[in-house]
Amino acid sequence: MTASPAFHVYDTTLRDGAQQEGINLSVADKLALAPLLDELGVGFIEGGWPGAVPKDTEFFRRARKELDLEHAELAAFGATRKPGTTAAEDPQVRALLDAETPVVTLVAKSDIRHVERALRTTGPENLAMITDTVALLVREGRRVFVDAEHFFDGHRFDAAYALEAVRAAAAAGAEVVALCDTNGGMLPPWVAAAVAQVHDELGGAALVGMHAHNDSGCAVANTLAAVEAGATHVQGCVNGYGERTGNADLLSVVANLELKQGRRVLAERAGGLPEMTRIAHAISELTNISPFARQPYVGTSAFAHKAGLHASAIRVDPDLYQHMDPRGVGNDMRMLVSDMAGRASVELKGRELGFDLSERPDVLTAVTRRVKDAEANGYTFEAADASFELLLVEEVEGRRPRYFTVESWRTIVERAGGRGMPATAEATVKLRAGGERIVTVGEGNGPVNALDHALRQALGRVYPELTAFELIDFKVRILDSMHGTDAVTRVLIETSDGETSWSTVGVGPNLIEASWEALTDSAIWGLRHHGVEPR
Amino acid sequence: MTASPAFHVYDTTLRDGAQQEGINLSVADKLALAPLLDELGVGFIEGGWPGAVPKDTEFFRRARKELDLEHAELAAFGATRKPGTTAAEDPQVRALLDAETPVVTLVAKSDIRHVERALRTTGPENLAMITDTVALLVREGRRVFVDAEHFFDGHRFDAAYALEAVRAAAAAGAEVVALCDTNGGMLPPWVAAAVAQVHDELGGAALVGMHAHNDSGCAVANTLAAVEAGATHVQGCVNGYGERTGNADLLSVVANLELKQGRRVLAERAGGLPEMTRIAHAISELTNISPFARQPYVGTSAFAHKAGLHASAIRVDPDLYQHMDPRGVGNDMRMLVSDMAGRASVELKGRELGFDLSERPDVLTAVTRRVKDAEANGYTFEAADASFELLLVEEVEGRRPRYFTVESWRTIVERAGGRGMPATAEATVKLRAGGERIVTVGEGNGPVNALDHALRQALGRVYPELTAFELIDFKVRILDSMHGTDAVTRVLIETSDGETSWSTVGVGPNLIEASWEALTDSAIWGLRHHGVEPR
Repeated sequence: MTASPAFHVYDTTLRDGAQQEGINLSVADKLALAPLLDELGVGFIEGGWPGAVPKDTEFFRRARKELDLEHAELAAFGATRKPGTTAAEDPQVRALLDAETPVVTLVAKSDIRHVERALRTTGPENLAMITDTVALLVREGRRVFVDAEHFFDGHRFDAAYALEAVRAAAAAGAEVVALCDTNGGMLPPWVAAAVAQVHDELGGAALVGMHAHNDSGCAVANTLAAVEAGATHVQGCVNGYGERTGNADLLSVVANLELKQGRRVLAERAGGLPEMTRIAHAISELTNISPFARQPYVGTSAFAHKAGLHASAIRVDPDLYQHMDPRGVGNDMRMLVSDMAGRASVELKGRELGFDLSERPDVLTAVTRRVKDAEANGYTFEAADASFELLLVEEVEGRRPRYFTVESWRTIVERAGGRGMPATAEATVKLRAGGERIVTVGEGNGPVNALDHALRQALGRVYPELTAFELIDFKVRILDSMHGTDAVTRVLIETSDGETSWSTVGVGPNLIEASWEALTDSAIWGLRHHGVEPR
Repeated sequence: MTASPAFHVYDTTLRDGAQQEGINLSVADKLALAPLLDELGVGFIEGGWPGAVPKDTEFFRRARKELDLEHAELAAFGATRKPGTTAAEDPQVRALLDAETPVVTLVAKSDIRHVERALRTTGPENLAMITDTVALLVREGRRVFVDAEHFFDGHRFDAAYALEAVRAAAAAGAEVVALCDTNGGMLPPWVAAAVAQVHDELGGAALVGMHAHNDSGCAVANTLAAVEAGATHVQGCVNGYGERTGNADLLSVVANLELKQGRRVLAERAGGLPEMTRIAHAISELTNISPFARQPYVGTSAFAHKAGLHASAIRVDPDLYQHMDPRGVGNDMRMLVSDMAGRASVELKGRELGFDLSERPDVLTAVTRRVKDAEANGYTFEAADASFELLLVEEVEGRRPRYFTVESWRTIVERAGGRGMPATAEATVKLRAGGERIVTVGEGNGPVNALDHALRQALGRVYPELTAFELIDFKVRILDSMHGTDAVTRVLIETSDGETSWSTVGVGPNLIEASWEALTDSAIWGLRHHGVEPR
């Protein structure tokens, strides 16, 4: 783990971000997300609230064995001790210690109204709660950060008390006091004034941090204003996730600090900004929250130019209509009304996959057209390189590889009995391969699983190479109607042969048909990749 | 039409907003959108670019006859005359006049690099273009606003020239010079400094306006900073629509100005802020862009509270966790039930649904425990109020409502033939209801659709009330393994009876079982809600 940098980028996607409506992170999700955040180069990853949230206790336990972070330090989040007890005796404080993280972040009340009405205790007792809990954790060797909850509202109502709370935290040994605009109602000038005052008051006794929410649409700006006023610790969530309108979008904050204010804030040897777009999208796959196309820096529309005015100018000089080169954040410039850009992407992608299409303009045209049509019908080739490659192969070689001919398939799912009784799922596949007609049946925990087993058995008879292939990931999305007709289902699957993995896509009116397409594409690509000839 | 107010709220949803990827407004769409903008109380509605965009020429023609705006004035947008001709001879300027709007807004170059490289003309000629065009339109009785394109970037590169352009516009009779952050790369302090300088320079010769884009995530804050520095004209789009990352969200700008800075900016007798949420959603229906749940003020999640910490405080006083009363913008406070919530959220949610659990601590405990357990197993009750209610009912009344008893169900999906052949989906349901044993078969575009039809037919025989229910939304999610076993599938469905809609959740080892649970919960809740007794 790296030593604490001068500027803290503190990510709370796994804790505050998880409070967003529609986000429900399992322990496995969090264990998959943390490495992505680490790869971006954040300094701290707040993993959850152990003790209070059972899944989070589990996360920290497994993180100790399974997470190997290169740049970030893991932080456990929790509250100051309860009124009327001691930090040592409070089981939730114990749980924070048991998480065994290098950093512990405590949320502490700094608004006297919350102390009195929500906690139902007194001002002095709250200060003691802060002091006790911080001191205990420091004694136990933890780096302690304190989130001064409702700081700005509290400061407006009773500045003296809010500052006492902040001072108590610093005096007890907190390394950072992060000022929280918990209700999100602040505007930048107000934030700047309050942060400047705190920065003055603390005089270096602790770092000043900022934790903004977007209820006024100013979370990013509020965070930047805080930094301007002396904060050196910024909190936020990737993609602006979070309760209500979300936390400050940490990606925008970091991009602005690095690109517009020339401050190096991400870990030096991490992926950094050039990986930001890819990481943002990978994170949205895990949270299963549709990416917001207009999101600054990483949105698919962020550098997409439509107006004719802009298009002709961009052809002269992209800088004329872009505030930066999109490659700086790993994004692409996209021309929405011009098939010149479409061809360029396809050619580049083809080259990436080993096909030189520069001498085959006819193929390039055909592939580009097919990709556009397919995408208009629900396909996405972004996360399905193997399907894209099969499309290319089909155009380059004139036809798809013919490993088998499908005669028919069927799935049956049935349940006898009421609630609580299990269902059975079975599938039958009939196909021709290797000169034979093959009929198989498969069972599974669902129709797709059963179909996969039946297909695998059928093909495995002629192509034993296939037995090494394993389905390792499966994503479903119901897409809104494309042309005013019924919704379509899109399936993305990832298959592995133990050495490499590949992704295929399938689209259809229902899950089964979509899955069949993705499964057969996967088998075909896998066999071709292994150099197997059709039998 | 009202006299020009002291502060201008200038909406460009129909022009700049229409440049967003995915938005395609017909003339009819624009004619339907304008009254909604008027109802909100904006001062100006920029309708389009007549002459350059044929649909817009048509819009202005029809607007003259069909639009009857109460508060807003219509503006036609266009460019300064071309280099090397006169304003009187330029057909695009003619087209602006032919639109016969009270206001004409001209986009003018203020960045010398654009003058030279994009327009390929000289600095002085550009100033003449501005002067000529503004003067002609003023002579013809139009109120003229000038958008100084790329002003901030231009001002950084060559402040003297940028200011000359602004002065030329004002001197020729422009009422407003709106400074545009066309590439969206500005941050609030830079905007404030530039706007203050222009405001000084102009000395009242014209109003200073702001037109921000959100490429740095600071469009709203930039707009507020401009107002702070003397701007009295703000431009933006409803819901932050616009090219790339969008224009400043005019709704956030206006809400912040009125609610946080006490400035009355919307038309006095218009619907105003209390109508904002409804209008925002109505506009998103017309643009066919899915509303962004986390949008400040008007998003469905904007006032939705999840964390247990917040819920217990809100029980005491909603202001403790909200920056304002949501009814002020026509929105609602919503409590989300989740495993982060504790007894307090459950109690509040129960109250929202009409159950007073304050006297039933045993029920509260049982429900809270069941919710946490269920959520640990993949359920989410956040977006499934009806399933949550059935759980409550079961605990309060001791058992679930018994409308029917399921004997068995089965789904079959089969495809004869290879790629491109359609599959057929069929389902059989056998159940007891109303004293009868009922066996039905349903067909559909997939197994879940077929199951829904079969279930509906079966229950419809005994409960004809059910025929009014319709499945209107369906979401699937594959969840990572919870306990190291296979992944589970979670389904969320929304059903409508034409007047209201309700959501239910289902979880199972596969899509079919999960859907069955959500479908049956939906039928049970719907019947109970309609006051139907089990037959």
